Amino acid sequence: MIHFTSDYTEGAAPEILAALSEINLHQYSGYGTDPLCEEAKKLISYEIESENADIHFFVGGTQCNMTFIAASLRPHEAVVAVDTGHIAVHETGAVESTGHKVLTIPAADGKMRLEDLEMIYNLHRDEHMVKPRLIYLSQTTELGTVYQQKELNQIADFAHNHGMLLYIDGARLGSALTAEKSDCTLAHLAKVADAFSIGGTKNGMLFGEALVIVNDALKPDFRYFIKQKGGLLAKGWLLGLQFQVMFRDGLYYRLAEHANEQSRKIYAVLEECRIPMFAEAVSNQLFPIFPWSFIMELAQNFSFEIIEKIGADKAVIRLVTSWATADHDVEILCTWLRKFQVE
Amino acid sequence: MIHFTSDYTEGAAPEILAALSEINLHQYSGYGTDPLCEEAKKLISYEIESENADIHFFVGGTQCNMTFIAASLRPHEAVVAVDTGHIAVHETGAVESTGHKVLTIPAADGKMRLEDLEMIYNLHRDEHMVKPRLIYLSQTTELGTVYQQKELNQIADFAHNHGMLLYIDGARLGSALTAEKSDCTLAHLAKVADAFSIGGTKNGMLFGEALVIVNDALKPDFRYFIKQKGGLLAKGWLLGLQFQVMFRDGLYYRLAEHANEQSRKIYAVLEECRIPMFAEAVSNQLFPIFPWSFIMELAQNFSFEIIEKIGADKAVIRLVTSWATADHDVEILCTWLRKFQVE
Amino acid sequence: MIHFTSDYTEGAAPEILAALSEINLHQYSGYGTDPLCEEAKKLISYEIESENADIHFFVGGTQCNMTFIAASLRPHEAVVAVDTGHIAVHETGAVESTGHKVLTIPAADGKMRLEDLEMIYNLHRDEHMVKPRLIYLSQTTELGTVYQQKELNQIADFAHNHGMLLYIDGARLGSALTAEKSDCTLAHLAKVADAFSIGGTKNGMLFGEALVIVNDALKPDFRYFIKQKGGLLAKGWLLGLQFQVMFRDGLYYRLAEHANEQSRKIYAVLEECRIPMFAEAVSNQLFPIFPWSFIMELAQNFSFEIIEKIGADKAVIRLVTSWATADHDVEILCTWLRKFQVE
Amino acid sequence: MIHFTSDYTEGAAPEILAALSEINLHQYSGYGTDPLCEEAKKLISYEIESENADIHFFVGGTQCNMTFIAASLRPHEAVVAVDTGHIAVHETGAVESTGHKVLTIPAADGKMRLEDLEMIYNLHRDEHMVKPRLIYLSQTTELGTVYQQKELNQIADFAHNHGMLLYIDGARLGSALTAEKSDCTLAHLAKVADAFSIGGTKNGMLFGEALVIVNDALKPDFRYFIKQKGGLLAKGWLLGLQFQVMFRDGLYYRLAEHANEQSRKIYAVLEECRIPMFAEAVSNQLFPIFPWSFIMELAQNFSFEIIEKIGADKAVIRLVTSWATADHDVEILCTWLRKFQVE
Repeated sequence: MIHFTSDYTEGAAPEILAALSEINLHQYSGYGTDPLCEEAKKLISYEIESENADIHFFVGGTQCNMTFIAASLRPHEAVVAVDTGHIAVHETGAVESTGHKVLTIPAADGKMRLEDLEMIYNLHRDEHMVKPRLIYLSQTTELGTVYQQKELNQIADFAHNHGMLLYIDGARLGSALTAEKSDCTLAHLAKVADAFSIGGTKNGMLFGEALVIVNDALKPDFRYFIKQKGGLLAKGWLLGLQFQVMFRDGLYYRLAEHANEQSRKIYAVLEECRIPMFAEAVSNQLFPIFPWSFIMELAQNFSFEIIEKIGADKAVIRLVTSWATADHDVEILCTWLRKFQVE
Repeated sequence: MIHFTSDYTEGAAPEILAALSEINLHQYSGYGTDPLCEEAKKLISYEIESENADIHFFVGGTQCNMTFIAASLRPHEAVVAVDTGHIAVHETGAVESTGHKVLTIPAADGKMRLEDLEMIYNLHRDEHMVKPRLIYLSQTTELGTVYQQKELNQIADFAHNHGMLLYIDGARLGSALTAEKSDCTLAHLAKVADAFSIGGTKNGMLFGEALVIVNDALKPDFRYFIKQKGGLLAKGWLLGLQFQVMFRDGLYYRLAEHANEQSRKIYAVLEECRIPMFAEAVSNQLFPIFPWSFIMELAQNFSFEIIEKIGADKAVIRLVTSWATADHDVEILCTWLRKFQVE
Repeated sequence: MIHFTSDYTEGAAPEILAALSEINLHQYSGYGTDPLCEEAKKLISYEIESENADIHFFVGGTQCNMTFIAASLRPHEAVVAVDTGHIAVHETGAVESTGHKVLTIPAADGKMRLEDLEMIYNLHRDEHMVKPRLIYLSQTTELGTVYQQKELNQIADFAHNHGMLLYIDGARLGSALTAEKSDCTLAHLAKVADAFSIGGTKNGMLFGEALVIVNDALKPDFRYFIKQKGGLLAKGWLLGLQFQVMFRDGLYYRLAEHANEQSRKIYAVLEECRIPMFAEAVSNQLFPIFPWSFIMELAQNFSFEIIEKIGADKAVIRLVTSWATADHDVEILCTWLRKFQVE
Repeated sequence: MIHFTSDYTEGAAPEILAALSEINLHQYSGYGTDPLCEEAKKLISYEIESENADIHFFVGGTQCNMTFIAASLRPHEAVVAVDTGHIAVHETGAVESTGHKVLTIPAADGKMRLEDLEMIYNLHRDEHMVKPRLIYLSQTTELGTVYQQKELNQIADFAHNHGMLLYIDGARLGSALTAEKSDCTLAHLAKVADAFSIGGTKNGMLFGEALVIVNDALKPDFRYFIKQKGGLLAKGWLLGLQFQVMFRDGLYYRLAEHANEQSRKIYAVLEECRIPMFAEAVSNQLFPIFPWSFIMELAQNFSFEIIEKIGADKAVIRLVTSWATADHDVEILCTWLRKFQVE
């Protein structure tokens, strides 16, 4: 069985483990107050081309999202997300568990549209309704698509012209930063967003998400929130060390680029076979639509997620490649996909 | 300016004030531990034809809804409501403020459909998503329509066959109980729902909602929840007294019937004038669709809510009658409405 | 049985009921957006000698406290209260239910001491502990004592010099404002506190607490919080009307003064009989210490609370007088108390 | 500078890193649904001598505590802890952030006394106060002392006779299990507690706490709570793997025994020098009391925590040994301590 289920089925890039072994018996002060975290923050500051951001490290994405959101909102304020948004569907109500409503609007190819954002903003006009205050986007989106700089600028402008905040969930940011059709850069994100995360778990780290807080108003006392939500890792240097390895010589980008490349190879075959796609193929997630019978066959040798049924006899599946996806496995998959055409 | 904005624009039925004056200087023990509350609970038990329900009194509906819902759910459990549901839109995220997600599904004429309920239930299948646990309905609905017994039976069966709870928000229950096309009864609600409320504020009380808890599992320690959410009224007998007056000789039904009758008179004219309706006319809320120009004219003499625009030049408005709506005011309105036809 | 249990055992001052009857069938817009509330706010602004405060009305004290506190704090911030404080003991964890810790310090005669406040502030110095942010006092205290202006000035100075807020719970503020040994005034409270409440429920209103928010930073969007916590009364004018009656010609003070006077009469007898007191007798709550046998005897004719046992055979009881306490009832009690001495 | 600050200043036991390297590129399904977690659970079941417990893995202790507590309580229920308890002081109000009050009682040598527990239980008797429902203990305690089986039996009996739950925080459980003066065993904990944790972070794992839920009523849907609070690690097998290494051949006990032994060596010198102790020396934390001048001297070569001042010129410090504390470092410390005596 070969996994195309997700990009977190393996451990970590060998460079990570090597670095870990090297510093293992060194003594560090706890909770992220160590020099490794400091160094990692410097490297990230360099990448985002700003020395004014506050950077914090988390073990996981749900924790990062909920901690930032709960810290940024007053009790009556709500988040706006697309209805496929990770916080809206797949975090077991983590945001609501901190007391805040997540308002949802439809998505086009996984992306938020300005007109829907305007509409939901305008609907919420008095104290009998929550106050939309924070816009939540994912880059890449849940459907593997990527916001272009122009699109982010428009949403950011809307947010800031209406007293709202923009937060970008970068669980798969590496893939967006290195996708062929993308002009996404860390420096641009740091210009438009009030805060965003840089995902490591899905890009070759054992675990780890970096939260970059740009907006000064959201910075004070932030470590209190991390501790309160249970996210302050005792051996915090494990996070610093990994992000250091990722950004000291571009490993983060190389790993993401590998995932994208493997995906492009698979997509080339899908195109060749004229398989319809549920969403545009841009990054390391592909959403082809197959007849149910073929999906059943495929499932005997590959593991992947079935996203949703389309009509009586078709379905969308998700194929995910990662930093660790081997050429050999991609070739086997492509051979199988080509079989489909022949049939 | 004559108000058709809501059913809570006046104080209380004169019988309420008279009763209040009578007992004013009597000494009662606080927080609803008085004989007036006891007596009111007995009267309601008689109406619902069950002596096994626990009954609690609240000052307002949002408080009643949020306290019951927060008390009934574990942290990962969610509410299912229609997207026009009061808790989903007009309670400023009160349910979410207690940590629970409100899942929404579309409504038909304000009512929840079984197929949508099934769909959302089936979508939520693992621990990455919240667990749908409580179905929230309003009777009458936000659009003034009424669930028939058969419809409630189906939803209740679905709930109980799937380990879910059914809660019915009766903020305008009086109108449902006395509507011509309705077979709704308190005894039936007590049979199908795990809990429901009986609204007094919109039916001639100064304030007051009775919460009827039928399901034994939801009864223990309930007074703790009321106190914790700030809902335990110091002079609790004010609630007991008012519900006593409401149910000792059928005043509750008479007041609601008056509201429905005034509404029927207005609807007769709307029908006569062939005004299209946004929702079926059943209870004390009417949703006619008028050209924008006529609405502007009408607004010079009457106050009412504009619900939503329809196309470029029309809109739905809401006309609400109440226990206090005077014949004379209805006549003036009807005269105006007839003018519309003439034009 | 004559009640000295609490100051909320009767309905309302006759002036309140009269006013209520008078406006009963008038139509008002809902949720406190009516002219009666506006007028009441003007009267209170006059009393506090400031036109810059925001004033909101609540049905009850727990609701007022929890809504204000939850609105004022970020998630990691905590309240400091004395260990007898109402929010610390008798509100069923309402503040904690909104996510905030209540830190407690010992009290002297019900009052917070500056040295304890300093100590707890200094103990909380990093992100592994909550951040003390809001000081909660009650005026009168839970033991019926009263903070003098000088004492409040010191605590307010400490608060503001350390980035903290001062909130004063005035559930029994009337009694403090009119106590013989007190220099408390509404204008002074509005000078030192960031916010405070003016209690009506325990001073002759059917229900009602006014929240006075002085600190500009705490004002925005406050009505959202009231709605979210279930505290926005549909027929909001019922609150406005009552506060109008209270403050249009000094009724609030006269009712409180009556309660204090009845208490002084009782205390005169306690002094005469050399009954030891658990706390200084200042306002409408008295805390005499009696032998257990006498308490049992007393309890056959009067109702009151037993506060705590002292040694094997004594206990502190609480005797509360109110705006409605009749001369005749006080005389009967005094006769009984004198019997004690004779024995 | 040699650290005696804490037991989490180094990475992990070499066996952990070796195992990690070995499985690094193997593909596992996410979120703890892998065979490594299954195997680890089996090993722990064997140690606790019960196959009926549910076992879950967490990255950190605060997360484990808050998730379990929030999952186990209804909104009005509170925790009882000693006033030095970790959740009461050092978790930034994490428990309160989930809506629950932490009631505190004094401790003797870090331990809860039955009479204080009884007292606080009896004080909370009606719906105006929270309902004490869960007893929180730490083993070892915050002062390094250890509950004997007899003491735990008494507290567990009290809990279960009064409808309460017993939860034991085992962040430093290894030290308790292997301390000379302790009869603590995993099997006994599984008999008396409703749930307890087995700490790995402070005993040679990179990170990791195992939560053992014994009480059937607390088991359902638990993975939902972990996900909602942000604690479901994507690469969950990292936790399973580490606990497997810990319990497959007794490494967990050997590492803890090492820490205790190093502590005993230091204590022998403290005894020899007649240094007064703030708490009994039992496990891997020592609390000697030194003159301030000597502490200042010591601090030039060793890092440790200063716990609290005693009088004008003394203070309690905390010396912590760990699985990684080298003999050589202990010897250097002992030499310094002996110097103290000489002076």
